[in-house]
Amino acid sequence: MADVGTIRHATVVGVGLLGGSAALALRAASPSVRIAGVGRRQASLDEALRLGAIDTAHLDAAEPVGQTELVLLATPVAAFAPHLRALAPALKPGAIVTDVGSTKARVVRLAERLLGAGGPFVGSHPMAGSERKGVAYARADLFSGATCVVTPTRHTPDELTARVERLWAALGMRTVRMSPSAHDRAVARVSHLPHVLASLLMMLPQTGDLDVAATGFRDATRLAGGDPEMWRDILTTNRRAILDALDRFASDLSDLQGLLADGDAGDIEQFLAKAKRRRDETLAQSTPERRVAME
Amino acid sequence: MADVGTIRHATVVGVGLLGGSAALALRAASPSVRIAGVGRRQASLDEALRLGAIDTAHLDAAEPVGQTELVLLATPVAAFAPHLRALAPALKPGAIVTDVGSTKARVVRLAERLLGAGGPFVGSHPMAGSERKGVAYARADLFSGATCVVTPTRHTPDELTARVERLWAALGMRTVRMSPSAHDRAVARVSHLPHVLASLLMMLPQTGDLDVAATGFRDATRLAGGDPEMWRDILTTNRRAILDALDRFASDLSDLQGLLADGDAGDIEQFLAKAKRRRDETLAQSTPERRVAME
Repeated sequence: MADVGTIRHATVVGVGLLGGSAALALRAASPSVRIAGVGRRQASLDEALRLGAIDTAHLDAAEPVGQTELVLLATPVAAFAPHLRALAPALKPGAIVTDVGSTKARVVRLAERLLGAGGPFVGSHPMAGSERKGVAYARADLFSGATCVVTPTRHTPDELTARVERLWAALGMRTVRMSPSAHDRAVARVSHLPHVLASLLMMLPQTGDLDVAATGFRDATRLAGGDPEMWRDILTTNRRAILDALDRFASDLSDLQGLLADGDAGDIEQFLAKAKRRRDETLAQSTPERRVAME
Repeated sequence: MADVGTIRHATVVGVGLLGGSAALALRAASPSVRIAGVGRRQASLDEALRLGAIDTAHLDAAEPVGQTELVLLATPVAAFAPHLRALAPALKPGAIVTDVGSTKARVVRLAERLLGAGGPFVGSHPMAGSERKGVAYARADLFSGATCVVTPTRHTPDELTARVERLWAALGMRTVRMSPSAHDRAVARVSHLPHVLASLLMMLPQTGDLDVAATGFRDATRLAGGDPEMWRDILTTNRRAILDALDRFASDLSDLQGLLADGDAGDIEQFLAKAKRRRDETLAQSTPERRVAME
């Protein structure tokens, strides 16, 4: 936790729900920190100032980064390139740069190209959020108790990765280290594919069907309520890993259609029991915090 | 509600979670009712007696049904045939017979064959439950606020259907009338298919993936925790409607794979936005009770 104490000045690029929450959490962990906010829209910056999330507001990332020990990119991933280009020449030596993007391989490739491999950039994916958008919904405890994946490459010095991990730990997160592509394959299977399936499921009901919908349908389609713009970015930047996961899923689905068409009750029960066992085991092996999240 | 007052004696066949809860709810709505419980295992019957769900216990459905105005079948659907055969010759004239089974076409066909078309059987599917099994978890308010689908056939007198609807309304349920096959097609799309997808989804993660699983994965796989035996019966008795829904889903999935492979961000956003709109509209059009269930 000590590490946050060495950050006297931080810059948050993109002061929405995630950027604003990170700013509030950082301030809670280290009350004397000064925080610069960078954004495209003055109105959002003004709101972030008013809410106390940031101390100064800037339309250009180059302005504050000369005096900052930490830059956090929290805009949509599609907007990273211009900000990285702007801040690259102005960055204070020794500063660390990280982000909150939901996909990592492309982002990390881009950041290493624009800022250099081997630092100062290390990718992060704090797995927290809300269906709400905007700094008005930011909360200092948004990240608390959740997992943050930190994604160094073979060029990243271990000490730099460790500094980024200590940062998220100071904001209350459990950290997990993965390569950018391993991260993307894992989230394709446990996050992006489920989202796609929920959206597809929402297309299926015909008139009157929803009269018989109950909590099962609610749970199975909840992800389809997510923000279409944000999910468009996720699906396009992690396209290859999601297509791989969809291929595998489509093949499993086809096997199951065969199983049902055969109508062997024993085989069907075996399939259902195996899925239940995997879910029950996942719960049993989870940490208490993750267990709560799964139940 | 008045109708429950005309039931002085009821028989519940299968005193588990649903049968036990129906017995408790009936007693709460009409305190003077006498309730006979029928089951295969004396231990379950003893527990139901101890909990006050039933007044008398029987291993043979023929025993109590000579004096009963209502028979409720609440065993697994696979066990309906022997019970219907046993009670058919002993049934009191004017009694109504209904059930709580999750699939209807097969059940209704069987009951009309064994008890006669045009009464006394009308199928029901009270859409309430729990992942827990057994009379120990029975609650008088299990059905309260939920939907019950009542499934008459073209042979069923309207007055008989109305009596069954009044029964469920007296237990606090909203009733919806559908043909048995329309019911089965609708639940295939909004309940059985989601269950199958949740089970398939649970098979996908590889070692380490669950480190990055969050609430989305929890919600999307919650159904996979259901009882394999019960779901085996549902998937086999509603096989044809589920296969139709799976065909349609597999075709939609294949279209989406094409959309992602093309990588057109606009098309992808359109798909996501349409799914979100359908979900938001569903919530907006729901009754307040159903809205709570969907959010």
